[in-house]
Amino acid sequence: MSVSSSGTIAAIATPPGEGGVGIIRVSGENALSIAKTIFKSSKDSFSGFKPYTMHYGYVLDENGLELDDVLAVFMPGPNSYTGDDTVEFNCHGGRAILGAVLGEILSRGAVLARPGEFTLRAFLNGKMDLTQAEAVAEMIHAPSKGAVQLARVKLSGVLGNRIEELRGRLEVLRTHLCVAVDFPDDELECLPLEEMMTEVTDAVKNISEILAGVERTRAWREGGLAVLSGKVNAGKSSLLNALLGRNRAIVTDIPGTTRDFIEETLSLDGLQVRVVDTAGLRETTDKVEQAGLDMGKELAQQADLVLLIIDGSKPFDLSDIDPEFSAQSGKCIAVINKIDLVQSIPSPSEVMLGAGYEVVEISAKKGQGIDQLASTIREHILSGSGEPDPDELVPNSRQAATLRRALAELDGLVEDIKMTIPYDLLGVRLESACSALSEITGEITPQEVLDSIFSKFCVGK
Amino acid sequence: MSVSSSGTIAAIATPPGEGGVGIIRVSGENALSIAKTIFKSSKDSFSGFKPYTMHYGYVLDENGLELDDVLAVFMPGPNSYTGDDTVEFNCHGGRAILGAVLGEILSRGAVLARPGEFTLRAFLNGKMDLTQAEAVAEMIHAPSKGAVQLARVKLSGVLGNRIEELRGRLEVLRTHLCVAVDFPDDELECLPLEEMMTEVTDAVKNISEILAGVERTRAWREGGLAVLSGKVNAGKSSLLNALLGRNRAIVTDIPGTTRDFIEETLSLDGLQVRVVDTAGLRETTDKVEQAGLDMGKELAQQADLVLLIIDGSKPFDLSDIDPEFSAQSGKCIAVINKIDLVQSIPSPSEVMLGAGYEVVEISAKKGQGIDQLASTIREHILSGSGEPDPDELVPNSRQAATLRRALAELDGLVEDIKMTIPYDLLGVRLESACSALSEITGEITPQEVLDSIFSKFCVGK
Repeated sequence: MSVSSSGTIAAIATPPGEGGVGIIRVSGENALSIAKTIFKSSKDSFSGFKPYTMHYGYVLDENGLELDDVLAVFMPGPNSYTGDDTVEFNCHGGRAILGAVLGEILSRGAVLARPGEFTLRAFLNGKMDLTQAEAVAEMIHAPSKGAVQLARVKLSGVLGNRIEELRGRLEVLRTHLCVAVDFPDDELECLPLEEMMTEVTDAVKNISEILAGVERTRAWREGGLAVLSGKVNAGKSSLLNALLGRNRAIVTDIPGTTRDFIEETLSLDGLQVRVVDTAGLRETTDKVEQAGLDMGKELAQQADLVLLIIDGSKPFDLSDIDPEFSAQSGKCIAVINKIDLVQSIPSPSEVMLGAGYEVVEISAKKGQGIDQLASTIREHILSGSGEPDPDELVPNSRQAATLRRALAELDGLVEDIKMTIPYDLLGVRLESACSALSEITGEITPQEVLDSIFSKFCVGK
Repeated sequence: MSVSSSGTIAAIATPPGEGGVGIIRVSGENALSIAKTIFKSSKDSFSGFKPYTMHYGYVLDENGLELDDVLAVFMPGPNSYTGDDTVEFNCHGGRAILGAVLGEILSRGAVLARPGEFTLRAFLNGKMDLTQAEAVAEMIHAPSKGAVQLARVKLSGVLGNRIEELRGRLEVLRTHLCVAVDFPDDELECLPLEEMMTEVTDAVKNISEILAGVERTRAWREGGLAVLSGKVNAGKSSLLNALLGRNRAIVTDIPGTTRDFIEETLSLDGLQVRVVDTAGLRETTDKVEQAGLDMGKELAQQADLVLLIIDGSKPFDLSDIDPEFSAQSGKCIAVINKIDLVQSIPSPSEVMLGAGYEVVEISAKKGQGIDQLASTIREHILSGSGEPDPDELVPNSRQAATLRRALAELDGLVEDIKMTIPYDLLGVRLESACSALSEITGEITPQEVLDSIFSKFCVGK
């Protein structure tokens, strides 16, 4: 992806698939002139696009044939999303229609936008810094309302501003150091080491504070993962259905995800939790057995929670516990199912409680205990961290990694200052820290970082 | 679905999934008042929604927390899609965001719209007749530009008008008949049988004309189906990939479709063709073998075309021809693959040509003959019917079935007139024909017909 803001780009801005409405977005210097050539108003009195006004009419092909009835709106730069002139067409939301309208626009000289290119332009045009641009993608991919909120805070620019402020203070230190290094004999504005230590320590504290939220809000930002374990007839699928019945998340399949597992997504009071039943894999032929076991093991390791489903209507039996999953005992809950049926002695609940497991008794069939199980799952996955603070500043993984790089330099700097090493060596660490911080906001960002960030966007944003 | 236009409804109007933009549509008497309570403009000077104007601002939740940055537009009835007051919010296109904004709107008293309910309202509000409402869904689901065009003609109301005109003429005949039946002795305005015959024959001709397009345009409207047949190493998947490389259609998976087949969709010069390779099924375990064969057989019967892939680098062998598929020989093309390798004697091409098959020689690996194969596939599926006429009136399957019902009554009427049976008996057939025609436009439509029509829509339209 070349960092260029010239040319006119176009793409379908709505999700792929079929729906009531689909939007084609065109942005760049020729957006308006292209729109003028392909749009015919339904009104004879139409005298051109009025900014920010919905015009009803038709998109025509090169033969004057009407391709679709649309609502068209012109948003002149710089007051548009990208900062460039932008026209959007609200079309009927069908694949062939959107393909035909987009094709017509491309044939008039627009270029198909790459993933994230509209937002890249907004960034290049100074409409937003890199943390805000990334927040756009984070909002769209957010699995929960909490995650949307965490992204929105960043979209407002608060994180970028805070990082810039920090960097500004460190740059002041650098200037002082440079003076001291360049004019060592003058002792002009030579920075007292204590003052430098105070500033650096404060920066360390600030960055650590920002990083603290990463783990605490992880479940909100990424969703949780629970794995079902247990014997074939313990009732895993009834349990999954019972949970889904009350907590179904509105989620569509993501292309490319594996279909080897039975996987459903729950929304537990706003928290998104993937629940995976690996059983299907084990019950297939020998050939794939080992691959299945390996994938199951990996999933159990990644999981926030393993639910060990046990048939409570039968005497407890050691084979109820899958050794592979019980190895994850720190994150295992015993779910005793079929409590509506007569229980034998010793009851599985007693055994599991005795073994130190948290136990939830349910009847998936009768719907007993399901709500309690749902809230237990939620609590475990949140591990006591509760709802995210609506104003909390939480960096994404790229930002966190870059902050950690800055932090390591500053931690090193603290040690260096203690050892009173030469000013010019201190300057190197300070420069590295500043450079890391500038990558976060995009003040100075290597091309490959930009490429990596915007390639994660969907087309049309 | 009750035929009621009261209350305020809301839904996500864009396809499900993630994209740059997602639209929430709210329509009904409280659309504007709900929008006022949840929308905060970014401008202090905001003095309320100006019709058809994009307002930039925020959707707030009940605590005043900003859920998303949106563009909001108010379209007052009757000049809106539904005919009722409508507000649309262009939000960021993420699931959690759209869920949160929609949830906020529902909590303010709007009701979640059922599939097709916005269009049902447009129909009930007299904004469109039933053929136009159905054309909306046909446009959205159209698999090709040709199909979009056929649907657009109907969206403009041309089919509805033509049917209504036909029905009007038949209703005039009915009136004449009634007069004759009610006042038999007066011989007042008694309709000459010849005149009646002329009118009815003309109606029969008209309806037959409209029905003629159904089969001719089927491949455009529904897409074609080609099935791949051949031995494991004949190169079926290389062929599929070679075809996809040049003719990939932009299609996303439709939830609920079977994953038992390898299936891809090509766009051959605008014509959408599903290509199915059933091989995967046969190569699984014995248990599902029979089910696989049954499904393969059924697919081959439904297919417009069977491609019999033969390894041209090996001597021809009778087992190259799957007996199940070759039973469909009327629609079978022999594709001789691997022509880049040395061919043996007798060559498969000679054998197949000798047996009366159409033969296309290709090398999937080298990309030879792929374009010719693509155009052969396209021609076969269109079976000489070519591009659809952009102005052609083609009824959908419901309309066609209802037209055939009317046609049967009118054909019967022609016979009855020839036999000069009593006027009142003629009237019964005429009434049935008129009633069928009125179902098409929705002048008089049983509730279950409406239910069936609108349940096929996506939510949000």
